[in-house]
Amino acid sequence: MEKINSDNENLYKALPTAVKERLPKYYRTLRTLIGDDILRTRSADLARFMKITPSQVRQDFSYLGGIGNQGYGYNVKDLYSAIGNVIGIPNNYSAVIICRRAGFALALASDQCFSTRGVNLKKIFTDDSGDFTPPDPDKYKLPNIAERSTANNDPAYLRAANYCRENRIDIAVLACDKSETDAAAICLADADIKGIWNFSGKEIETSKKNICITDMNMPDILLGLCCEITNKNIPGTAK
Amino acid sequence: MEKINSDNENLYKALPTAVKERLPKYYRTLRTLIGDDILRTRSADLARFMKITPSQVRQDFSYLGGIGNQGYGYNVKDLYSAIGNVIGIPNNYSAVIICRRAGFALALASDQCFSTRGVNLKKIFTDDSGDFTPPDPDKYKLPNIAERSTANNDPAYLRAANYCRENRIDIAVLACDKSETDAAAICLADADIKGIWNFSGKEIETSKKNICITDMNMPDILLGLCCEITNKNIPGTAK
Repeated sequence: MEKINSDNENLYKALPTAVKERLPKYYRTLRTLIGDDILRTRSADLARFMKITPSQVRQDFSYLGGIGNQGYGYNVKDLYSAIGNVIGIPNNYSAVIICRRAGFALALASDQCFSTRGVNLKKIFTDDSGDFTPPDPDKYKLPNIAERSTANNDPAYLRAANYCRENRIDIAVLACDKSETDAAAICLADADIKGIWNFSGKEIETSKKNICITDMNMPDILLGLCCEITNKNIPGTAK
Repeated sequence: MEKINSDNENLYKALPTAVKERLPKYYRTLRTLIGDDILRTRSADLARFMKITPSQVRQDFSYLGGIGNQGYGYNVKDLYSAIGNVIGIPNNYSAVIICRRAGFALALASDQCFSTRGVNLKKIFTDDSGDFTPPDPDKYKLPNIAERSTANNDPAYLRAANYCRENRIDIAVLACDKSETDAAAICLADADIKGIWNFSGKEIETSKKNICITDMNMPDILLGLCCEITNKNIPGTAK
């Protein structure tokens, strides 16, 4: 079996967007296989999980510089590690959460969204004025006690940006108020943040800053679902 | 100026996926314009907000059966209402949240994700055994006190499904444990739910059920951002 070539960094650039977008799901699928002690897999099996065709799977992996032997399949751990390298798992990215309300951070942090993916959630900054106490830090698996409003009442994003600069943080999860989004993005860019996962509900202008942005507009996503339901419910069409 | 034709429901079916996906953002953009008392807009202005070209905007609206006069522009309120109709805002969809932990529901519910988009969040079902009390229901703008574990210890999704059946609920926000996803989806389908916004981390098989599904895999989205950061950081490429 050929080994997946994960060393050639130049390959990454050539990855089509659709392939890039599938990498996290491949990674998750392979992780599940490893958990189930399945150490060899075929493109047909992966295709079923991924809901694409086996030839699409083979084509995706051809971009990673290696293919498994036909009929013999892929070594799951090699593939997991190769895809992890493309994603950047070995970089051990660090992250902070900046949020208006601690509930949001609790929800994200407690779901082990970060720890299980090799991202080190370092600190949570919130504008909650301390009246929201995690009921059981162990249960909620918080990385440490969340940073709270300080006496001088600086907004969370400002305190976070200072922390990020001093601690070379890679990723900021931003769930501030819409009115603070622009100011927060500028501060975080100045603090050399590499990526912002933006839940603030207002898009961040990327043109000026060399930061990767993932905009999450939850109401938009909800309306997308409504739109699908509405279109399915057209009178006269099969239900 | 021609009026947007929003009555012809057959048009909806013909909407390309890319146009459908842009509708929530159009809706949000128009909403912002109305809030700013801007009652007439041009495709060039909308294009700037939408980060697409003016001709794409005009083409999108041509699918809605009407176009503004060149040089005169669109009536913002008409357009807002027409797009709202396509999305299904007048249907006043109802929703419940089903979650392992109340923090998640608090975060979603308190952000007015639902109320500002005409979706009526009716109830929250959680498996939290009551040790998580919203510090201030008014502040968190919860629709009403969350339903808690009952004496018989039925999982939240089961209690929710019963409620959904009795109250003809349209949308379930599902943030149960991965191990419960399949069972929950079946129960909710039996309760005639029309759409599931799935945060459980496991995809729901749609083939068997006539339900619209929006899968949200938060760790996948985080890894997508990591992947972008990694690819930007390739040594030798412009930073």
